[in-house]
Amino acid sequence: MVVKIGFGKLGNIGSAPLLEFLLDERAERKDIEVRVVSSGAKMSVEHGAEIGQRLSEFKPDLAVVTSPNATLPGPTKLREVLVSAKIPVIVISDSPAKKAVPDIEKAGAGYLIVEADAMIGARREFLDPAEMAIFNADILKVLTVTGVFKILCQEIDKVVQSMQKGQAPTLPRVVINKEKAIEASGLSNPYARTKAIAAHEIARRVADLTVEGCFVVKERERYTQLVAAAHEMMREAARLADEAREIEKAGDMVLRTPHHDNGVAGAKRRLMEKPVKPE
Amino acid sequence: MVVKIGFGKLGNIGSAPLLEFLLDERAERKDIEVRVVSSGAKMSVEHGAEIGQRLSEFKPDLAVVTSPNATLPGPTKLREVLVSAKIPVIVISDSPAKKAVPDIEKAGAGYLIVEADAMIGARREFLDPAEMAIFNADILKVLTVTGVFKILCQEIDKVVQSMQKGQAPTLPRVVINKEKAIEASGLSNPYARTKAIAAHEIARRVADLTVEGCFVVKERERYTQLVAAAHEMMREAARLADEAREIEKAGDMVLRTPHHDNGVAGAKRRLMEKPVKPE
Amino acid sequence: MVVKIGFGKLGNIGSAPLLEFLLDERAERKDIEVRVVSSGAKMSVEHGAEIGQRLSEFKPDLAVVTSPNATLPGPTKLREVLVSAKIPVIVISDSPAKKAVPDIEKAGAGYLIVEADAMIGARREFLDPAEMAIFNADILKVLTVTGVFKILCQEIDKVVQSMQKGQAPTLPRVVINKEKAIEASGLSNPYARTKAIAAHEIARRVADLTVEGCFVVKERERYTQLVAAAHEMMREAARLADEAREIEKAGDMVLRTPHHDNGVAGAKRRLMEKPVKPE
Amino acid sequence: MVVKIGFGKLGNIGSAPLLEFLLDERAERKDIEVRVVSSGAKMSVEHGAEIGQRLSEFKPDLAVVTSPNATLPGPTKLREVLVSAKIPVIVISDSPAKKAVPDIEKAGAGYLIVEADAMIGARREFLDPAEMAIFNADILKVLTVTGVFKILCQEIDKVVQSMQKGQAPTLPRVVINKEKAIEASGLSNPYARTKAIAAHEIARRVADLTVEGCFVVKERERYTQLVAAAHEMMREAARLADEAREIEKAGDMVLRTPHHDNGVAGAKRRLMEKPVKPE
Amino acid sequence: MVVKIGFGKLGNIGSAPLLEFLLDERAERKDIEVRVVSSGAKMSVEHGAEIGQRLSEFKPDLAVVTSPNATLPGPTKLREVLVSAKIPVIVISDSPAKKAVPDIEKAGAGYLIVEADAMIGARREFLDPAEMAIFNADILKVLTVTGVFKILCQEIDKVVQSMQKGQAPTLPRVVINKEKAIEASGLSNPYARTKAIAAHEIARRVADLTVEGCFVVKERERYTQLVAAAHEMMREAARLADEAREIEKAGDMVLRTPHHDNGVAGAKRRLMEKPVKPE
Amino acid sequence: MVVKIGFGKLGNIGSAPLLEFLLDERAERKDIEVRVVSSGAKMSVEHGAEIGQRLSEFKPDLAVVTSPNATLPGPTKLREVLVSAKIPVIVISDSPAKKAVPDIEKAGAGYLIVEADAMIGARREFLDPAEMAIFNADILKVLTVTGVFKILCQEIDKVVQSMQKGQAPTLPRVVINKEKAIEASGLSNPYARTKAIAAHEIARRVADLTVEGCFVVKERERYTQLVAAAHEMMREAARLADEAREIEKAGDMVLRTPHHDNGVAGAKRRLMEKPVKPE
Repeated sequence: MVVKIGFGKLGNIGSAPLLEFLLDERAERKDIEVRVVSSGAKMSVEHGAEIGQRLSEFKPDLAVVTSPNATLPGPTKLREVLVSAKIPVIVISDSPAKKAVPDIEKAGAGYLIVEADAMIGARREFLDPAEMAIFNADILKVLTVTGVFKILCQEIDKVVQSMQKGQAPTLPRVVINKEKAIEASGLSNPYARTKAIAAHEIARRVADLTVEGCFVVKERERYTQLVAAAHEMMREAARLADEAREIEKAGDMVLRTPHHDNGVAGAKRRLMEKPVKPE
Repeated sequence: MVVKIGFGKLGNIGSAPLLEFLLDERAERKDIEVRVVSSGAKMSVEHGAEIGQRLSEFKPDLAVVTSPNATLPGPTKLREVLVSAKIPVIVISDSPAKKAVPDIEKAGAGYLIVEADAMIGARREFLDPAEMAIFNADILKVLTVTGVFKILCQEIDKVVQSMQKGQAPTLPRVVINKEKAIEASGLSNPYARTKAIAAHEIARRVADLTVEGCFVVKERERYTQLVAAAHEMMREAARLADEAREIEKAGDMVLRTPHHDNGVAGAKRRLMEKPVKPE
Repeated sequence: MVVKIGFGKLGNIGSAPLLEFLLDERAERKDIEVRVVSSGAKMSVEHGAEIGQRLSEFKPDLAVVTSPNATLPGPTKLREVLVSAKIPVIVISDSPAKKAVPDIEKAGAGYLIVEADAMIGARREFLDPAEMAIFNADILKVLTVTGVFKILCQEIDKVVQSMQKGQAPTLPRVVINKEKAIEASGLSNPYARTKAIAAHEIARRVADLTVEGCFVVKERERYTQLVAAAHEMMREAARLADEAREIEKAGDMVLRTPHHDNGVAGAKRRLMEKPVKPE
Repeated sequence: MVVKIGFGKLGNIGSAPLLEFLLDERAERKDIEVRVVSSGAKMSVEHGAEIGQRLSEFKPDLAVVTSPNATLPGPTKLREVLVSAKIPVIVISDSPAKKAVPDIEKAGAGYLIVEADAMIGARREFLDPAEMAIFNADILKVLTVTGVFKILCQEIDKVVQSMQKGQAPTLPRVVINKEKAIEASGLSNPYARTKAIAAHEIARRVADLTVEGCFVVKERERYTQLVAAAHEMMREAARLADEAREIEKAGDMVLRTPHHDNGVAGAKRRLMEKPVKPE
Repeated sequence: MVVKIGFGKLGNIGSAPLLEFLLDERAERKDIEVRVVSSGAKMSVEHGAEIGQRLSEFKPDLAVVTSPNATLPGPTKLREVLVSAKIPVIVISDSPAKKAVPDIEKAGAGYLIVEADAMIGARREFLDPAEMAIFNADILKVLTVTGVFKILCQEIDKVVQSMQKGQAPTLPRVVINKEKAIEASGLSNPYARTKAIAAHEIARRVADLTVEGCFVVKERERYTQLVAAAHEMMREAARLADEAREIEKAGDMVLRTPHHDNGVAGAKRRLMEKPVKPE
Repeated sequence: MVVKIGFGKLGNIGSAPLLEFLLDERAERKDIEVRVVSSGAKMSVEHGAEIGQRLSEFKPDLAVVTSPNATLPGPTKLREVLVSAKIPVIVISDSPAKKAVPDIEKAGAGYLIVEADAMIGARREFLDPAEMAIFNADILKVLTVTGVFKILCQEIDKVVQSMQKGQAPTLPRVVINKEKAIEASGLSNPYARTKAIAAHEIARRVADLTVEGCFVVKERERYTQLVAAAHEMMREAARLADEAREIEKAGDMVLRTPHHDNGVAGAKRRLMEKPVKPE
């Protein structure tokens, strides 16, 4: 059976841009069929409604929706439309989405809340297309190395596998914090792990400064300085994540878990060995 | 007038994941409406046809399609569907797409071919979700700092502005090489520029090794080593791009060109000054 | 007039080990006489009482007391002894000391609370003499470059100068946060400043992990990992601080404010110029 | 039995600021009681006499005195006062103190002379509080990683243990050079060791430039350049020491020797194991 | 028997300046006698003839000639003179020399063509003595770590050994590419190997930019930028090579193959072990 | 007039391998004709005599001889042969050559003694061809950036220019120390200069460890460790030199002094400007 997964994306968070590719990194999987629909940067109620509508037309077996702050009206509308259509929904969002948890649970949906997926420094004096892209590059590295993406990938894979077996899936309900992430990361050297935790924590704290700079401070020089400092923190977190991975390389211990074409993830550590396919 | 832009994405290239956000980095633009439709990693003719169909339903004023190697049947089908629907199309693709240029031109479409957008090292022994995401993080940094994203953004903005003025747009036809990219990058220090050119060239050459490792070499140990070396090259290119940007920071000369809500891009260099809005 | 300054130190914080040398970095000042008394790592009430007693015997014009968490009984006793002896007291402590502010103010004392002076990861599985010293080296770099030490130095100097003029000193009452620190830092390049803010913020957040690791988490593997991650954060903050200072070097803009022998601080930027003595 | 240790500090050297904390890094030891008395940056004969007097009043079982150049009159007076009071004395000082060795030995005192504890670049055009603190941060890292602090700590611990057993202590008489330091460092990887030796040697040679810059060269531009170069050397030595420790982290081989509350130092290498308490 | 080796050098390539020392790195070999004759930077036919003549007078058992582009008239003349004198010749040159292979083979000579030995950025606006020396320092590091020098050394040693045994030597005929080089490099960690391949590939591609900048582009600003970018690439390649070697150090796996005085190369990995002499 | 310069090289020092190319970095000079003769690593009296003889046959207007320790019999013989042949001789050697100064002066020769040209760590357990080449790459970077090569180049150029004008040349007699080197380096940023001085000083001190490791210490483990530490110092010196040059790049202030074809050195700072030819 091929499981149809629909991704509905409103606005952007670090977890979103590569999400569908995490499931099928070499375009070899035969067990899933993917559609993505997005309204780009905009995330009003109207956008939420329309994206939900378009995604429903694809009749997905599973819908995964991403947005900043899932408590906002647009993301809320998006998941409501999908839930109404009886489509199992997993919400992926950032820390402010924790307040939406009761609402999500009541609707029978799942969630993966990514604490380290910090808000960008969205001030016009600072954030232009280049700065936006660099921030995203940095956060991608952090989310990957610290294990966050591993959890996103595993949890969706688990649901897909349940569906393939004809079982009713248990939708994930996880707030991904530093310890859960590192546990999933597969990092083997303990200092690689502590560096990854540090990277995760720094990334998470970026949001303190961007929120302060975007919503609290009104003086231009002050908020510019704050959001710029936040992006320096993310750059540093990325550097630390990179350092963690380099330690794993030095020990030839990088965990790799490539998907096979039937959707099962193999596993290997030594670069020159073949991935082991689980039974 | 609000210009409707439809993004059709088949498979992944480095230029694709953040493309729509390059146009509206802070979600403030009132002059454009964006939809993205994608089939994820898959890019067969059927996927091309369906994505084209879905995108047409949005009735975009402009369609931007992204895929690896635009000569392949899937991407070809995608743009044919859109062209048939009388929608102006811009094709964004990587180096192998150069061979599609005559075909694209004949169809009246535009293109932005990104030489530095090198193919990923898609071997199962090497490429898992984490490695895929890290490669994308690195290439994002390279494409941003070396000026590639600046050209993508400017060229699409130009078409949008023509449309807003009710003019028939001239669709861009550019092969983005190292010199064009650096020219657009806005880097001011000459050594930042030369480092960016070096980063661009290294990134471009990544494809030599991934192509060799994916399509030419058959022995597992050899191809694993080659694609892994290719990713080390991209990591290095990203590091060099970062170094270029740090030089600009040291001189307080980082060019920032944030979009205003009417879609016009401002410009500033000193971090503490306000962006200047062009007349 | 020579002002006698007594330093009473209980336990250790990052602000303490070099404090008296910040006032007289080349041992040239003729306007102050300094004594330091400390009970080393211990900070019980008995230690507080005795250090207070010994310091009083020196009959200082000003007492500066340092300790972690000034709300604890030992540090509280120390300042009480000094206040009882009618000695003007400045309390220097870390974030938990904020709760002691009403008490300190009621006693007529001053305070300088250093938010970035994060608690060390005091778990036996992790913290040995070497790890302790390295943490202190890192925090010294952060507190110096981000401007914290500048504030400590200036505020004590101000009190000394008042006393030299025979004026009743106004004791400082400052919670040193990221923005106050950077303002004092003298960093001129805006990216050096934002990197310093980032370093300050990362250093401040170290305490979240050390507190969690030392007081909340009970499982050995978990707390070891947490406090080790905290030290990685401080190492990173130090690296970022160093990067900020290197930017100032690249622009030949390092602010230097050496004390003259009469206690007045000069100022210079260009390495090859002479410090300007204020009138 | 609780051994009372009095630390008398005149002026500053890199070995001094954290010395008492090296013995009791988590404030858990019940077998020692510590007092520190210092005159800050000043180190005249009068200061030496008074610090010696104050320290004697504490009736320490052991006195440890630190100062630059122990041949100077102030440090000499300090140890004379303590020796006269029949207190066992250990002198900790820098390279110029070698000339004081006969005098120290005649007085029956011990010494730990730290070759890498190089003089700071004490020129007003260069050395302000910030530069002083940064130099100290760098030298702390060097002295820690290269094994110097390990020797200081072990030698004092040995004397304390003798005293606890009621034995007459043998006071240490060691000139700590690069090979002795590395031997004590516990570094396991041979390249970590050679990097640490290199760091030690660079640090030791810093003094050549600071002495030249402070005492030999008279032209302002020349001496400023020399002392600034000396601090760059120390920064580099610290960087190299950090690199050595990172290698140990990569192999999960960092030696940790935390003190137990009875003063005995445990030992461990793997981060996730428990320290082994020696019998 | 002592084998006499004559080195004739015309112009400079990265493989040339240390070539004779690669054979006898500690000046201990008793089995070879070396002469070097060179005309410095110049490489006309006259220079080739004269260097060939002078070298012949030494009556070498083996001649090794180095030059850029061995197809040029000067280098061609040099080897013709030597071949005429019945001296076995090995040509060492860079990529453009591949076109000379038929000619070299016809003459019965051997060759070692070094693909990574990229042309320098020889434009007056850019290349001065310092830039030239830095480029050479960088390329030396690349050629060493990636295994190129190992091949040069082994191949010449093999010929020498044949001659010592009185056998007719088989002259080497190798185009040294990335895979052959890494195979010879002795790097053990697979990521060190992939980094070395990446370094080799980047170095090789330097020539694309220097050739473009020196021979194709005529506008000063453009060619200056191109050749400067090429040198940034080489600096990056050297950095990556260094990184590869540091990984080997971290694992204490650096292969060392010192020559014994009889010319045989020993081998060792652990720094603290003795080299093993092959039978 | 074309000045004929003969280079006689015995053994290797860091100043030797690129020496002739420093004079004619792009092979464009028409005012000089160069020959190099060398005996490779060997430097006995017989080698000195023969190299002197061969060089004399070239009838150079100026002979430049390089070797380690010019007091040794081989190098002494080499310069005696040349002096006897009435050829003006400049001796380039390392620190131990200072003892040869009276002898050199008596012979009417000139000298350029390079203090930073430290002896390599020539122990069989450590030094193989790769380690030798890496050391040379590092020392090349140090000697270039710190200004040493600039002095070598300028002093030989001065003699050549005198000869071209038909004047009796004054042969240089310079011991190149840190201050002379930096003065010549052309570094403009004062921190680039201090970093370069630090690099120079570290490089110079490498010799202390290699001499100790090669000639004083007899135990294998100890000397291996010492010579390895010495090479780490040189690697660090090279890194610091690189850092100095990067600062100059960040300010677009790299001094370039390319030779014109008449041998005159131009000068420029901004990368995009043309070199200025002195009158």
